[in-house]
Order: sequence, then C-alpha cells, then structure tokens
Amino acid sequence: MRVTVWGENVHERRDPSVAAIYPEGMHEAIAAGLRERLGGEAEVRTATLDEPEQGLGEEVLGATDVLVWWGHVAHGEVADAIVDRVQERVLAGMGLIVLHSGHFSKIFRRLMGTSCTLRWREAGEKERVWNVAPGHPITDGIGEHFEIPHSEMYGERFDIPEPDKLIFLSWFAGGDVFRSGCTFERGAGRIFYFSPGDQEYPVYHHPDVQRVLANAVRWAAPRLREAPAGSPNSPVGWWK
Amino acid sequence: MRVTVWGENVHERRDPSVAAIYPEGMHEAIAAGLRERLGGEAEVRTATLDEPEQGLGEEVLGATDVLVWWGHVAHGEVADAIVDRVQERVLAGMGLIVLHSGHFSKIFRRLMGTSCTLRWREAGEKERVWNVAPGHPITDGIGEHFEIPHSEMYGERFDIPEPDKLIFLSWFAGGDVFRSGCTFERGAGRIFYFSPGDQEYPVYHHPDVQRVLANAVRWAAPRLREAPAGSPNSPVGWWK
Amino acid sequence: MRVTVWGENVHERRDPSVAAIYPEGMHEAIAAGLRERLGGEAEVRTATLDEPEQGLGEEVLGATDVLVWWGHVAHGEVADAIVDRVQERVLAGMGLIVLHSGHFSKIFRRLMGTSCTLRWREAGEKERVWNVAPGHPITDGIGEHFEIPHSEMYGERFDIPEPDKLIFLSWFAGGDVFRSGCTFERGAGRIFYFSPGDQEYPVYHHPDVQRVLANAVRWAAPRLREAPAGSPNSPVGWWK
Amino acid sequence: MRVTVWGENVHERRDPSVAAIYPEGMHEAIAAGLRERLGGEAEVRTATLDEPEQGLGEEVLGATDVLVWWGHVAHGEVADAIVDRVQERVLAGMGLIVLHSGHFSKIFRRLMGTSCTLRWREAGEKERVWNVAPGHPITDGIGEHFEIPHSEMYGERFDIPEPDKLIFLSWFAGGDVFRSGCTFERGAGRIFYFSPGDQEYPVYHHPDVQRVLANAVRWAAPRLREAPAGSPNSPVGWWK
Repeated sequence: MRVTVWGENVHERRDPSVAAIYPEGMHEAIAAGLRERLGGEAEVRTATLDEPEQGLGEEVLGATDVLVWWGHVAHGEVADAIVDRVQERVLAGMGLIVLHSGHFSKIFRRLMGTSCTLRWREAGEKERVWNVAPGHPITDGIGEHFEIPHSEMYGERFDIPEPDKLIFLSWFAGGDVFRSGCTFERGAGRIFYFSPGDQEYPVYHHPDVQRVLANAVRWAAPRLREAPAGSPNSPVGWWK
Repeated sequence: MRVTVWGENVHERRDPSVAAIYPEGMHEAIAAGLRERLGGEAEVRTATLDEPEQGLGEEVLGATDVLVWWGHVAHGEVADAIVDRVQERVLAGMGLIVLHSGHFSKIFRRLMGTSCTLRWREAGEKERVWNVAPGHPITDGIGEHFEIPHSEMYGERFDIPEPDKLIFLSWFAGGDVFRSGCTFERGAGRIFYFSPGDQEYPVYHHPDVQRVLANAVRWAAPRLREAPAGSPNSPVGWWK
Repeated sequence: MRVTVWGENVHERRDPSVAAIYPEGMHEAIAAGLRERLGGEAEVRTATLDEPEQGLGEEVLGATDVLVWWGHVAHGEVADAIVDRVQERVLAGMGLIVLHSGHFSKIFRRLMGTSCTLRWREAGEKERVWNVAPGHPITDGIGEHFEIPHSEMYGERFDIPEPDKLIFLSWFAGGDVFRSGCTFERGAGRIFYFSPGDQEYPVYHHPDVQRVLANAVRWAAPRLREAPAGSPNSPVGWWK
Repeated sequence: MRVTVWGENVHERRDPSVAAIYPEGMHEAIAAGLRERLGGEAEVRTATLDEPEQGLGEEVLGATDVLVWWGHVAHGEVADAIVDRVQERVLAGMGLIVLHSGHFSKIFRRLMGTSCTLRWREAGEKERVWNVAPGHPITDGIGEHFEIPHSEMYGERFDIPEPDKLIFLSWFAGGDVFRSGCTFERGAGRIFYFSPGDQEYPVYHHPDVQRVLANAVRWAAPRLREAPAGSPNSPVGWWK
C-alpha cells in the first residue's frame, strides 16, 4: 500500500505558532503518525505544493494507492490540470482522505459538486467526536467518542451531498454540531472527509485522530488499479 | 412554477430525420408536453444555445424554478461561466431535469463529480422501463413498467454517485440494463436524471414519458428561492 | 388529507406534571397544532390505546393518510396484530410520523429492523436543533436552527439504518449530539422520525416544532392508496 | 474468520432433480466453494434446520463471524426465538449473506422491515449479472458482467429499503430486471443479499458466483465481536 501525504506547506513556514507545533510541517507529522501505525503495511511518502508539478506528477500519482490532502490558504494555487489528474485517479480507484480545511480544496469541491461551505469559529473550544458507525473499519478501536480539548469549530450546515455513510458527528462547546467524518464513493474510488485538524492545534498528534487516519487509509485502499472502460459503443449482438 | 426547457437545438436543424420527428425542435416538443400536463400550474418557456448568453442569462435563470436540459453534440460549446451560473442556481434551490445525452453535459458532470460514462448502442431496440419506486411523486400514475418500442440503448455501468433514490430501471432487448431514472439532491436543489429520449425516436411524444417529466417538474420545484448562507464565521457567544 | 394522531395517553392521566402541560392529552395538543397549521388541507383526528382495537381498527387505518405516533411507557401493550396492520398500511403508502420515545415502539423497530437504542438524560437541558436540509419540504419556513430551552437529551449512537435523508441534527448543552430528524422510505410509505417531544416539557407548543410536524405531514402524504402487487408469478411471454 | 453456511436442507432430500445437482445438499456445495476460495483464511462449517436448535444454538452463533443463509420452503418452520437470536448477533456485528429465496426468510424480512416481495418466473432463462460497483470488495475479480445460462427469474419491483450500495443488476431474457446484489448495514453488522441461486440449476457451481460469495464473506466479516452499549442513561456531567 503506497500512501502519499500532500500538504500545501505554507502556514508551517510562515506562522511561528504553526511551526512550533509542526516543525517538519503538518504533512510530515501526518505521515509519521501513519508510518507508526501502519508499519510494514504501507510505504508513506510526502509531497508539497512547492515541488515540481506541485508534488503530484504522473509518476507520483501512478505510484499512489491512497492520497491524503491538507490545504488551506493556497487552494487557488493548485493548477486545474493537477486537479483533473487527481480526479481521474480517484475515479479509477485511488483512495482520497481530505482533511479539515481541505473541504474548500478544488479537488474536494470537484468531486462533491457542491459548494462545501460550512460555519466556522476559531476559539480553541472543546470538540467531542461521536462515533456513529461502530463496526465500520474506520472506527476500529475507537470508543463511543473522543475529545479534542482545543479545536477550531466547523459547524453545520455543511453543503455536501448526503454522505454514503456518516461515521463521526462532532459536538462543540460553543453550540454547534458537524458531520465530521463522512465517506463517499465516486467512480471506483473511496473518499473520506475528516474535519478535525486545524494548523493552530496539535490535533495530528492526538492518538485517536492518528488511529482514525490509519484506519481510513486501510479502508480507502483500492481494489482496482486501472480505470474501468469509458463509454464503449456496444454493437448489436456483442454478447452472443 | 416557472419552467425553462433548454435545448441545444442542433440536430433538429441539421438532421432531416430529427426534424421530421421534432419540426419545432426537441425543446418545443418537451415544452408542449409539459404545458399540456401541467396546465395552469406552470409557465413553460424554452431557451436554446444560439440565443444571447446561450439562452441562460441571469434574468432567465432568476425567473426559472425548474430547468430542463437536453444537449448532445454541443456540450463543449456551453460556456463555463454559464455552467457556473446554473450550478449556483441549483445549489440555491432551482430544480434540474437532465435528459438522455445530457449525462455528458458540463452541468451534469459538474454536479455529479464523476465521469458519467455509460455503454450505448444505436439499434432502435425495445426498452422496458421498470418502476422501482411506487409511491414516489415522480411515478405518480405510472404502472409497474412501460415500454418504448424503439430506443437508443444506454447501459451500465453508469459512472454516477449512488443516487439518493432509484426511480426507474430499464431493460433492453439487446442484453443491457440501466438506472434510467435517478434523483440526486445537491445544495438546496433537486436533480432528476432520466435517460429515455434520443433524437432519432419520438420518445418525447410517448404519454408515459410526458407524464414522468411533468411529475419530475413538480417534484423538483424549489422551496427556497435564495441560497442559504455561505460560510459565516460564527463568533463566540453568537447564539446567546 | 386525513391525519390520525395516536397517543398512548398514559402519562397524561397518571402524572400531574404532564397533565398540567397537556390537559387534554399530548395527542390532542399535537392534533391542535396540526389543525391550526394545516387548516382546510387536512382532517385531523386522534386515537388512543384505550379505545377499541387500541384506536387503530381497519376502518380508522383505512381512512388515514398519515399516522402520527406518540408512545412511551405502554409500547409493550400494543398488540402485535395492530403492529402488523400498521406496517402493512405503511408499506402500501400511508405516511408515518414517529415522535420522541416512539423510537422504541414496536412499529418503529419493526420498520427499521434495528434495536433503535440511544443514549438519554432527563436534565431539562437546552437543545439546539440544526437544519441540515435547507430546501427540503420538512424544513420549509425553518431557519438555520431553533432552540428548545428545556428538553430531554436523546444522544448518539442511535441504532437506526442510515436514514434516506438527514433533516435535523441536535446539539445538547450536556455534551451530546443526535440525528433528531430523519426520513426513511419503506415500501410505498414515507416515515419521518422526529425526536424532540418529551412529556415533561411543553415541546408540542413550540412554534417551530409545530411547523415541522405540519410540514412532515404534507411530505408524508401518500400518492398511492393501495398496495402494489405482491409477488406475482410472471409467466413466460407475459409482456408480449 | 469463522463461517457458518445454514441450509434448510429440504429440497435436496425430497426432490431428485435437486439431489442430482447437489448430492450433499446445497449448503455443502456452498461451503465447499467457500473453502476452496478462502483456503486458510476461514473455517467453514454447515448447519441445517433439522439439527438441534435448528442448527443455530448460542454456541454455534457465538462462534460465527459470517452466516450464509439458504432457505425456501421451510421459512415458516424457523422458530421466532432463533430469528431473534440471529438478529441480535447481526446487530452486534456478525456478517449475514442471504441467498436467493432467502429474500422471504424471517430473518431477512425482520432486518429489512419491508415485505421483500418480488416478481418471479421459473423458465430456465438466461440471466446476465451486471457489475455496477467496480472497485467494491464484493466485485473483486469480477468483470463488467457474467452470465448464468439457466436461472430462475427474480424481477422488480423488489420491496426492500434503498440499499446502502447497489452491487449487481440482473437482466433476464424474458424482459425483467433485478437488483441482484445489494448491501445493507444494520447495527454493527453487514448484510449482503445475492439473488442468483435456485435449487433447480447448478448456480453454486458457477465460478463467478463462487467468487462473489467468497468476496462477500470477506467484506461482511466483523470488526466488532460484542454489541455496543444498549440505551444508557447518561447522567449530568458524565463526561467531565
């Protein structure tokens, strides 16, 4: 299983408060958590926006079974041609894990078809993440709920299509709720959106968050590695 | 209820076989069927690709509750700015009925997020349309199934997200099946895809097809007429 | 549109605190709210457990388009034959609105196939009900959220099948969340589960709750009034 | 992974035509196919209606991760207490594969909440099974479609809740279509209904059918082995 963690890597180099939490960048922290939990099951690499082809060349994507995406302030800089390429790979079977502010990334909006708007508040408040899908592979080892002591609030209404499966629901001390873990299937690919994870809080060091991400990578790993046929003309009697 | 039937209006002016079936254009035939069945419930107008702003200016869309879409050979000519505008209106609540080859229109692919590919065959074969949602408003007055004596085959696998509700399943004499009637909700808008309706067959004169379309327009009519809020920052204590 | 509000009518006659809020019984308060809001659109009657055939004889059900259900301490007293009858009517198209503690009624568990367990707490805490389906008929006229100042807490995990459509999500001051408004379609019938409404709080006098219930009755009203065919043997050549 | 294949084992002992195809019983043929394909991954045992506790005592179910169910003429003989027990196990996480005429079994109807009626015809006609979920674990190794030369027709409308995921759609030579492979999640358990498999045809010797069943067992295997909590009262301040 080959995993690529993509990060825009902007906050970490610009904002000392973020660099203090994630000195190697958020993508490296996420990758480290996956390496520790997946061990020999997966090869985990990282890629960033400032690399050639924005880190997502044909070769990288061709060698990626599951792509993890973190972006925030640089969504607009991601080239449309890269978004086309990632979409095509997802429809052909590549797994995609979209994190937190990635709700507004071009690739997530492209795959959802909706605005992906939501409410938000930066107040470091408590978030309680409720497990509403016991028995699902993504909640393996997760109890009834877990807590993030300080979190950015993401709240409803979240403008997404009805998820294929609702996995987590979050409660916020300030009065909001959020569908914080959702699965979607598009083409032959599996997508998991998971909202905890702002740059200002050490959320990716949280053991339950790390466990969810490792579970999600396993769940999203593809069975297909090439796209199903396009739109074939099926001549009369083709099946005889 | 204000309905706009949009047609690309290319085949009808170019192909004598199509003009013979639809002398006023397919859009006019579809509109006539809706007018007859909806009567005073709806004002039905038409719009075509060759009109200013491709028939879909702000004023037209602002006065449209349900948009019906038929396109085929000219999908690529529809301007991206028009697609943006239609998408925005759908998310704000406008109903959208996408017909037949509209599966490959920019607006449908945009809203689905998938390739919308399918199998096809032009052999004038029999299509039997099975009603799998008795009790749904779109099947009101439709029996267990109806038949289209000569139809273009559209077959699986159809690359769409899992529909919110499967309404019709089609059987084709040549050995294929198709999810021929599907509903989707996106933002505050309702979308119905209905596959019968090739330009080479008089499908839009079929009474059951006309009934389905009239039902679909009623079902897709909006409850909201302005978009819900975007992504508001919700300050601490906003709700006290 | 003929609506029957069924109430077990036990708390109201036994508990002075409940009788103080609902002197005519909860079913009468619910019915009064529907009558006021639906006006001439609907005939609203009530039925209770202590009536002949537990209020749900063939004649009553045969003249009911939408059944509203409130029960709590007497679920076990509802006869299985009555549950069979109600289930059969729902599958044939009758709408069903299940309220609050009705989550544990025989009819709801029968239709869901799951345990319908949930967490609960009787602490009179604040419930904020978030509208996650703007544009849906059931949320017509409802804003982004509304509040119930004192409510019994119903919390996740709620053991139901994935709803066809999630309508409301509730936040509770004590730290819980709940899928408080959910739609399901079973057979030709439409089901809406709505959790606010404990006997100890005047929830059915709340204007937004009343509006939701009136909307839900309209949404659940049937298009079919007789069951689709059972399991017919379809002989060879039946369709020629 | 511990698999139990349950068969009612009536046709095989009564009807020479069935015994000729399945001399050891259908359950043994299904089990043999699973053993061959799952190899060391699974222990596969069988159980039948004529055994003590109808083959499904506490001990057997407690040692079963996935239960495969084939029944037809003896649905009514299965004791309600056994059905309660199986349902409870499914909600606690046990996988359940329901085959063919099992659509009318007590356990399937219990879990669906609907009538599970369908159309049918015994004419030995051709069935083509279309794969509409490429990329799903259950279709691993299955192409665009496969054929069963002689099959009993099961056709729409099939009265089930909207499946969580539609996996296969069948085409029948006689003019019918069917949702022949459907997944459902109930409680913590996963359910797969697969319609091919009448007692009069050697369907369970078909290599693609065997592959689908082996894939389905893998997919349905539980992550949980004990039920989540019931309906706990959550006292004020429980989470501090």
